[in-house]
Amino acid sequence: MELTNNQKAEVLIQALPYIQKYNNKIVVIKYGGNAMVNDEIKKQVIEDIVLLSLVGIKIVLVHGGGIDISDMLKKLNMESKFINGLRYTDKDTIDIVQMVLSGKTNKDLVSLIEAKGGSAVGICGIDFSFITCEKLQSDVDYGYVGKITNINAEPVFNILNEGHIPVIATIGTDGHGNTYNINADIAASEIAATLKAYNLIVMTDVDGILKDVKDPYSLIPEIAVSNVSRLTKQGVISGGMIPKVECCVSAVRKGVEKAIIINGTTKHSILMEILSDKGVGTMFSQVRN
Amino acid sequence: MELTNNQKAEVLIQALPYIQKYNNKIVVIKYGGNAMVNDEIKKQVIEDIVLLSLVGIKIVLVHGGGIDISDMLKKLNMESKFINGLRYTDKDTIDIVQMVLSGKTNKDLVSLIEAKGGSAVGICGIDFSFITCEKLQSDVDYGYVGKITNINAEPVFNILNEGHIPVIATIGTDGHGNTYNINADIAASEIAATLKAYNLIVMTDVDGILKDVKDPYSLIPEIAVSNVSRLTKQGVISGGMIPKVECCVSAVRKGVEKAIIINGTTKHSILMEILSDKGVGTMFSQVRN
Amino acid sequence: MELTNNQKAEVLIQALPYIQKYNNKIVVIKYGGNAMVNDEIKKQVIEDIVLLSLVGIKIVLVHGGGIDISDMLKKLNMESKFINGLRYTDKDTIDIVQMVLSGKTNKDLVSLIEAKGGSAVGICGIDFSFITCEKLQSDVDYGYVGKITNINAEPVFNILNEGHIPVIATIGTDGHGNTYNINADIAASEIAATLKAYNLIVMTDVDGILKDVKDPYSLIPEIAVSNVSRLTKQGVISGGMIPKVECCVSAVRKGVEKAIIINGTTKHSILMEILSDKGVGTMFSQVRN
Amino acid sequence: MELTNNQKAEVLIQALPYIQKYNNKIVVIKYGGNAMVNDEIKKQVIEDIVLLSLVGIKIVLVHGGGIDISDMLKKLNMESKFINGLRYTDKDTIDIVQMVLSGKTNKDLVSLIEAKGGSAVGICGIDFSFITCEKLQSDVDYGYVGKITNINAEPVFNILNEGHIPVIATIGTDGHGNTYNINADIAASEIAATLKAYNLIVMTDVDGILKDVKDPYSLIPEIAVSNVSRLTKQGVISGGMIPKVECCVSAVRKGVEKAIIINGTTKHSILMEILSDKGVGTMFSQVRN
Amino acid sequence: MELTNNQKAEVLIQALPYIQKYNNKIVVIKYGGNAMVNDEIKKQVIEDIVLLSLVGIKIVLVHGGGIDISDMLKKLNMESKFINGLRYTDKDTIDIVQMVLSGKTNKDLVSLIEAKGGSAVGICGIDFSFITCEKLQSDVDYGYVGKITNINAEPVFNILNEGHIPVIATIGTDGHGNTYNINADIAASEIAATLKAYNLIVMTDVDGILKDVKDPYSLIPEIAVSNVSRLTKQGVISGGMIPKVECCVSAVRKGVEKAIIINGTTKHSILMEILSDKGVGTMFSQVRN
Amino acid sequence: MELTNNQKAEVLIQALPYIQKYNNKIVVIKYGGNAMVNDEIKKQVIEDIVLLSLVGIKIVLVHGGGIDISDMLKKLNMESKFINGLRYTDKDTIDIVQMVLSGKTNKDLVSLIEAKGGSAVGICGIDFSFITCEKLQSDVDYGYVGKITNINAEPVFNILNEGHIPVIATIGTDGHGNTYNINADIAASEIAATLKAYNLIVMTDVDGILKDVKDPYSLIPEIAVSNVSRLTKQGVISGGMIPKVECCVSAVRKGVEKAIIINGTTKHSILMEILSDKGVGTMFSQVRN
Repeated sequence: MELTNNQKAEVLIQALPYIQKYNNKIVVIKYGGNAMVNDEIKKQVIEDIVLLSLVGIKIVLVHGGGIDISDMLKKLNMESKFINGLRYTDKDTIDIVQMVLSGKTNKDLVSLIEAKGGSAVGICGIDFSFITCEKLQSDVDYGYVGKITNINAEPVFNILNEGHIPVIATIGTDGHGNTYNINADIAASEIAATLKAYNLIVMTDVDGILKDVKDPYSLIPEIAVSNVSRLTKQGVISGGMIPKVECCVSAVRKGVEKAIIINGTTKHSILMEILSDKGVGTMFSQVRN
Repeated sequence: MELTNNQKAEVLIQALPYIQKYNNKIVVIKYGGNAMVNDEIKKQVIEDIVLLSLVGIKIVLVHGGGIDISDMLKKLNMESKFINGLRYTDKDTIDIVQMVLSGKTNKDLVSLIEAKGGSAVGICGIDFSFITCEKLQSDVDYGYVGKITNINAEPVFNILNEGHIPVIATIGTDGHGNTYNINADIAASEIAATLKAYNLIVMTDVDGILKDVKDPYSLIPEIAVSNVSRLTKQGVISGGMIPKVECCVSAVRKGVEKAIIINGTTKHSILMEILSDKGVGTMFSQVRN
Repeated sequence: MELTNNQKAEVLIQALPYIQKYNNKIVVIKYGGNAMVNDEIKKQVIEDIVLLSLVGIKIVLVHGGGIDISDMLKKLNMESKFINGLRYTDKDTIDIVQMVLSGKTNKDLVSLIEAKGGSAVGICGIDFSFITCEKLQSDVDYGYVGKITNINAEPVFNILNEGHIPVIATIGTDGHGNTYNINADIAASEIAATLKAYNLIVMTDVDGILKDVKDPYSLIPEIAVSNVSRLTKQGVISGGMIPKVECCVSAVRKGVEKAIIINGTTKHSILMEILSDKGVGTMFSQVRN
Repeated sequence: MELTNNQKAEVLIQALPYIQKYNNKIVVIKYGGNAMVNDEIKKQVIEDIVLLSLVGIKIVLVHGGGIDISDMLKKLNMESKFINGLRYTDKDTIDIVQMVLSGKTNKDLVSLIEAKGGSAVGICGIDFSFITCEKLQSDVDYGYVGKITNINAEPVFNILNEGHIPVIATIGTDGHGNTYNINADIAASEIAATLKAYNLIVMTDVDGILKDVKDPYSLIPEIAVSNVSRLTKQGVISGGMIPKVECCVSAVRKGVEKAIIINGTTKHSILMEILSDKGVGTMFSQVRN
Repeated sequence: MELTNNQKAEVLIQALPYIQKYNNKIVVIKYGGNAMVNDEIKKQVIEDIVLLSLVGIKIVLVHGGGIDISDMLKKLNMESKFINGLRYTDKDTIDIVQMVLSGKTNKDLVSLIEAKGGSAVGICGIDFSFITCEKLQSDVDYGYVGKITNINAEPVFNILNEGHIPVIATIGTDGHGNTYNINADIAASEIAATLKAYNLIVMTDVDGILKDVKDPYSLIPEIAVSNVSRLTKQGVISGGMIPKVECCVSAVRKGVEKAIIINGTTKHSILMEILSDKGVGTMFSQVRN
Repeated sequence: MELTNNQKAEVLIQALPYIQKYNNKIVVIKYGGNAMVNDEIKKQVIEDIVLLSLVGIKIVLVHGGGIDISDMLKKLNMESKFINGLRYTDKDTIDIVQMVLSGKTNKDLVSLIEAKGGSAVGICGIDFSFITCEKLQSDVDYGYVGKITNINAEPVFNILNEGHIPVIATIGTDGHGNTYNINADIAASEIAATLKAYNLIVMTDVDGILKDVKDPYSLIPEIAVSNVSRLTKQGVISGGMIPKVECCVSAVRKGVEKAIIINGTTKHSILMEILSDKGVGTMFSQVRN
């Protein structure tokens, strides 16, 4: 059904207060999961980002590796060693991770944004020493997996102010020529905090936090960060959502206004989250009285 | 019928290439006619302007006096003397015209824009000596009616660059304390030319130039300025449209990319003109080979 | 008597230390009273303002309505209803007040400044939402009379830095399209405080505070704000001077260096106040030891 | 032999006039060949670049793929098809080329520069649409090999002005999401011309143009571009040097002051070329009389 | 006779149009002759300069050596050798000239300006290589007397834009460590031309060009540069005035609007020249039709 | 022995980390003693300063009077009166001191810097009221000897940011036209503190603080400011070094990172101090744990 001119105009006009609210605000989007796999969804995500950028929102796109890394490792017959369910990243692996993330996933996203009329630049944490890290210390040795020690915000502010979208592959540097793989959710959270972003949007493959995991209609639209530990104990927040929620909580605690977990596989979910009053996921924020 | 989220998103996405095209461009809108009388239409025009401003288009709003001047003159029992169908503007009348245009019509528009979330400033040609003029010379004496001799563009560029919408009442100054009434169509045309605007949009009460004035479906969507004199001789351009077309032609000849006559009383006509590929009126432009 | 070149030069040279002292300082002048009625005085006030502006002082001109409002209401046969001596401002009246203040009084002042070679822009509190207000709450209902809730200083700083004199009509906006009348003395005081002005000059029709109201030579040249309540109790400050003195005290308490009540009907009183060591009125300031 | 403090100081002082001469000038360095293979040489090249950058020269580093691409294609068992000695680049191959050049070679160079204390950012022609290209047209189809149609200089100027070294992988974009391989010598030449560089330095594995190819001491230190065709006819410029010399000639013809072919495998050849009067290769320039 | 406040105000107001006219304009003043000897006159000249600077005129003060150089040479028992009435400047002499001009005359003037509330910086042609020169070539050897080959305008524009008065001793440099004495009238003329000054004011000890040298009331107020050669042939311009007039003519020919020869010993002659319509000397200008 | 290209390159490369460390840092150099007398040493000092300036270090050169003042006083047969070993500076003497320091020593240094390719401007404390002072109060009257009351840092920051080397003669002003002689060590210390310099380098004729004054190899390379009083009591710091050490301590206490006493007569001592890890003198710094 083709909409009339007037219907279209009404839609645009309804977006007005949201465009105003987000004007010149920084929104960090963690892009990952199935939304990076499906080409149709990917196209829509890129369109959403270009549109939001054009209406004056400063978008920072942080991405994971999708399945590009696994594909390449497989093609190269490089065996993946797992410890506690986490991939052990040896020197050869981190070289491939860096190459695929920075050279394929990252530049492909830049290319898509440019093709849709946006202006983007693809960087990783090595560029301008944007993400400095050290080897992650833990009981087991995960190899070249890094823990962020510093985010160099200034060059990213410059990129934003010159009107480009920074697209960020989460490879870190120790400043001595070694590179490390950085968890993209954590990186997005810390980048949002350092840039004093207004929003952090974390794309996942689920709709958000469900009160009852078996009831898809039981989505909790908003959670105060002070309630997170209680909900985790109750098992409402559980499994793979726990680290993602932690990233949201950490960002909010460090000054990000709102952190939202959305379903990246829902069509135009970012656009709807930002340009309407219908939150499409679960939002974490401070409660202020 | 309520649209789905996805339909809404599609409308926004379809506007993307137009938002890109008009990004940072200056669009001068001559606002007048019935679109200033009907409150519902006026609200929509203002919404359109605020939206276009927010998505990065530099809007300059030039307005006429609507019926505010006539109303006030009537209330004050000031007789209007007409010569050749034009109002003779004596000293008392120009004082009222200045007061009503600059103090009522102009500030009311600013107030409406601000209430819709835009940021505007209402000026007339006296401010910063924006419009300098001299007495219009003609066979008959029309009193304080002015002919523009200079447009002082710099303060208006400043206002645009600081993110505000200049709303302009077309009162001119001779630099010696005398003020003159300036035809708003002509003022909009010269302002567009001086600001090197991308578009001049002239709102009227008709859809544009009709090939056959009796056939409302015979709208001519685009006319090269080189064809205007022929169409005038043929009577296609006639009556009250002649001076409006002349304003469009003059602006295009002085470097404005496109000048468009649209029907201001059609809902969201400005928005549709700019953010879609469906021209809603008659566009005048150079033909370039 | 024509002065010699040398005498003229001496006068200019004597102004030197005052020009230095006020260089780049902001001076808010509340213009009102008989100095707005008499054409000769008005011409001199404007000359003073243009001169002070040219020698590097940042003048902000806040004006009341003089008799323009009463004149217009009378012409329109609009009865003025008074409560406790204050005009009740109904919807029709505030529309007239806005129109006359912003469209006649304000633009006439701008026109005079421009004719004398200054550069000015006339704004009211609606422009850039410069003065946001709410309905004044009191025992009786005065209608559309506003109490200032916010002054948006940035656009006025921009105007000053671009070399223009802002001329301000004290109409406020509630941000929802309603406009209110604001007492000009109070507005000038709050504007001076928000702009961190160096001086607030309040023009009245008397020479200042007289020790003995019957003795015109008993002018008190300087009063510490800490002494104001005592002088009020003693009746030295009384009647219509009380609210004007309160505006001065409030401005000084909020950081304005000096607030001065001067007689606007004395020739060149502003110029003499600023460019000589002969204070021509009563100055209010903090006492610092 | 350890040098004395005084000897060291003398060396620094001798560099003074060259540092002055190159202050704030743009030097485009095409990095490639064996100098990218040998780790010791690579380290020295990076040190030279960081030093030149720190003493105020604006270095732009354009690099080829060294042997990284061939290595990766081999590991992936991707057969290389050659036509007339040139690699045919099909869709799968260009994807690998983009990934390796932008994600491995490029970011490894950035990492080395950062480790030596410089500040760099690795981009390819996709970023900011820096290199727009179209499919190279020729008698045979080489697949995704591009011909440059536009260089977008502004973002690179920004990077230089913010104090970073742009490191450029020569992948181009057609603006519609397709990427192309661009010859790095040609890219360096066109980038130098667009940026109005002072110098273009092309690193090769030979010392420059030899008068007698069998006599290593017969290096020609300087060639006027007007003499190039004669020397080519004479066979002095021959084989693989012809396209490199063409890049130099083209850059000089488009306004680059000097284009120099140097032997990248000679220790510190860039440093010596710039900071001394001993040209270490063959310089191409206009002859001006 | 003490003037009334009102008389003083009138004087200030009368200066208004001249202050407007000269706002932000550059005026180069050649200060020399008896006006540098008499302390009372010197004080007035400094006051004039500080006042003009404060009211927004960009003053550049170029000075000669007064009698300071002769005094010092005498104290040092250094004989002055004259050739054709011009001092021969040997190496020892130029060292003294540099020292006295740059260290005594120049810094004393800066000190006086600062004491009167202006802000000044004393430079000579060596600083920033402001005045580059070569040895003056002529039939006889005058020693270290220089002919200007370049004026480096940028640092002086910076000084002016930062709000200071540049005070310039006319010592030139050849860029190799040698300094030369430069005729101050010629230097002032070339500086005015390079800075695109609005006015060049040359202070002398006479009132200007007299039609009849014996009649002090026969001052010619304005001379078109095209008439200068005729007046020189007629002997109206003669003797020591010829080179001064040549400086004026040269400045005007190179774009200075007006060059004026005034009597520096007349009280406040600079102030009167600029801030009134009574030219106090002889003005040279182009005639434009 | 001529060094090879490679040796030269190594020297430059070894300077790399120091150039990085000092990039954009302010280094105040007190130039005085025998290093100002010997022409060969003077040439080397100037070369060092120009080189350091070119590689991005912001050099501020503060100089004493060398023997220029004594020479001139002697030539003028002006007797020097000494009190407690200090020269009594009467009015005639301060005039000569100002003239020689500002006009000869200062401008000669500027001339040398320019001849070596640097860009410098010579100022004294009178210019921009850079050094305001009052008469030094003590038991005996030393005449026109000043104690610094204010340093006006802004114009010197401007000079540095515009790329010039400020060369400073330490003459102070009391703001009323009187000038005073200021001890150059103290001035350098206070200038370094006010400019928040990274380093203060004080050139003397000895190598630094010796543990055993008779053993030239007993140089103490580094002293914490907290140890200075103990070392003074022990007599390690003694005689003419005491006031110089006090200047270093004061600068460090006010925030200068390091203050170093070096032997100006050692060839290229400044260069070696800054561009190598071999401190050539005694460094004073805070001890931080």
